[in-house]
Amino acid sequence: MADSMHPTPLLKDELDIVIPTIRSLDFLEMWRPFFQPYHLIIVQDGDPSKTIKVPEGFDYELYNRNDINRILGPKASCISFKDSACRCFGYMVSKKKYIFTIDDDCFVAKDPSGKEINALAQHIKNLLSPSTPFFFNTLYDPYREGADFVRGYPFSLREGAPTAVSHGLWLNIPDYDAPTQLVKPSERNTRYVDAVLTIPKKTLFPMCGMNLAFNRELIGPAMYFGLMGDGQPIGRYDDMWAGWCVKVICDHLGWGVKTGLPYIWHSKASNPFVNLKKEYKGIFWQEELIPFFQAAVLPKECETVQQCYIELSKQVKEKLGGLDPYFTKLSEAMVTWIEAWDELNPSKGLPNGSA
Amino acid sequence: MADSMHPTPLLKDELDIVIPTIRSLDFLEMWRPFFQPYHLIIVQDGDPSKTIKVPEGFDYELYNRNDINRILGPKASCISFKDSACRCFGYMVSKKKYIFTIDDDCFVAKDPSGKEINALAQHIKNLLSPSTPFFFNTLYDPYREGADFVRGYPFSLREGAPTAVSHGLWLNIPDYDAPTQLVKPSERNTRYVDAVLTIPKKTLFPMCGMNLAFNRELIGPAMYFGLMGDGQPIGRYDDMWAGWCVKVICDHLGWGVKTGLPYIWHSKASNPFVNLKKEYKGIFWQEELIPFFQAAVLPKECETVQQCYIELSKQVKEKLGGLDPYFTKLSEAMVTWIEAWDELNPSKGLPNGSA
Repeated sequence: MADSMHPTPLLKDELDIVIPTIRSLDFLEMWRPFFQPYHLIIVQDGDPSKTIKVPEGFDYELYNRNDINRILGPKASCISFKDSACRCFGYMVSKKKYIFTIDDDCFVAKDPSGKEINALAQHIKNLLSPSTPFFFNTLYDPYREGADFVRGYPFSLREGAPTAVSHGLWLNIPDYDAPTQLVKPSERNTRYVDAVLTIPKKTLFPMCGMNLAFNRELIGPAMYFGLMGDGQPIGRYDDMWAGWCVKVICDHLGWGVKTGLPYIWHSKASNPFVNLKKEYKGIFWQEELIPFFQAAVLPKECETVQQCYIELSKQVKEKLGGLDPYFTKLSEAMVTWIEAWDELNPSKGLPNGSA
Repeated sequence: MADSMHPTPLLKDELDIVIPTIRSLDFLEMWRPFFQPYHLIIVQDGDPSKTIKVPEGFDYELYNRNDINRILGPKASCISFKDSACRCFGYMVSKKKYIFTIDDDCFVAKDPSGKEINALAQHIKNLLSPSTPFFFNTLYDPYREGADFVRGYPFSLREGAPTAVSHGLWLNIPDYDAPTQLVKPSERNTRYVDAVLTIPKKTLFPMCGMNLAFNRELIGPAMYFGLMGDGQPIGRYDDMWAGWCVKVICDHLGWGVKTGLPYIWHSKASNPFVNLKKEYKGIFWQEELIPFFQAAVLPKECETVQQCYIELSKQVKEKLGGLDPYFTKLSEAMVTWIEAWDELNPSKGLPNGSA
């Protein structure tokens, strides 16, 4: 029994928890009351001969690099190695409708009343209620208890839009880039903001993969974390890349992205010097990427996420290929990713998202 | 001394507080420690022969309908009567850089620690720090203490944009429309959300005039609250109308609009039956107005707020005139408003916003 408020855990058979890791998963002990009813997909990064210790009592499947190579064959090239971007392999092999992904240095946070926060339950609430991407509601999520649409909110928009993504936040160590880490090594996030809100249509945001849930049946094929880490010129932009692609596609297909609650407790800042090395190309490439994604238009003919994603990969090649050969490689990996996704997830002959 | 944290109240000589009222201003007693250092502009609505009682010790000027008619002559037609929309006359006669406007049924709220909230001080903080309309920061206002831009936020956008508007919220009685008031008569807003955020570019929002501050030198000429109340077919859309015009113009000129903190305590729900009568045309007109404002494009040649506003008035006449003759009348009032504004605020020969 995960949560005393829900004798049967919500979406028990419809949600997988995806965890990328290189170490033992002791952090699961703290999450046991919340996670144990769910199935885990563990994506082991780095040396596949090492053994990952999973605490007893959890229901899980574990994939290491050998498994990824065996399952995807040559298409395994699209899955990053020695980078937590490898987690997206877990999205691909899941057969569930929803995914929650969390880093192994994230612990249970407490709300201002001192109560432990069931992050997963909040993500599920976020995903199961609509989003409001077309007009901003000043009292935040109008579907939360005690809230509603305020005066002046058009009635025709009050049904909202399907929610594709729920982006959670972090107390303690904030998700800063290397330069900010270096400048403010001791800054901690202590502000608990009791809000969930929809990122408006046509607005991009920095999507962090540390504490993230999404409707895999809606947006799964766009949740590709790119080519990072081993053999690549860049790291720490995996979730950002996914977020920009996902947002452009959600905007095109009329779906919503929420951010805010739930908080997790982020225990450890990664090394800012190592991070700077991983990030520095991203920091200046990003200045081109943002205008690219802000201007990206998908043609009406793109009706499925796959079609949107392939179209986006073409635009990446065409418009970013000149920035660095890396983007041509990335655009090709985007196509490979979709091919691999479709191989592992053969179409049920149903329109996208209707299952 | 308004606030023990600020021995000299911030912007003491640069900010006017504008209050529309039909009754005695006893509510000022509660605000005395915060408002007394500032100058008040009281706009008396309704019967000008009645006397408004202002608590002693406040520095104020008061305008009734006779004053408005005398000062504006025939142009007084653009100022609403028997509607709190009349408050915008106060914006016009002010000579200050900043305006804070508040309703006379709004009291001092308390934060979760029980401390009285100095709403004005928070508005000033919001107005004096930049906005981030071009990209969403998931930790909200990056300029607040203990916060910053998160990983993935483009460095070129971290200077932000000038803040034109600070929109505050309400504890206790939420600002609901008549249908929602009727359906949820006892709903109260008890959620204190400790956040300030920028409404992204190209996103419209319902701007409530109850607890609102703005940079008058930047956006003042667009803060017209329209034709409402006596002799008009509509009410309770005054602040909404202003908000949509303001947002379109801020987006065009590259300025930011913030919402969130500060909260005030809204004491009294207005009568939902009366409100329904005022609102009902607005409720269906709005379904045309929102697409109109979402699609509105201002040409590059519009470089001042006045130019933008006149251009918008033309588009209102052309595109909304067919919806109801009211919009033709409103578009003409928009022009009259700008003429009156410019008469009372002769140009200093400086580019807009540089004073």
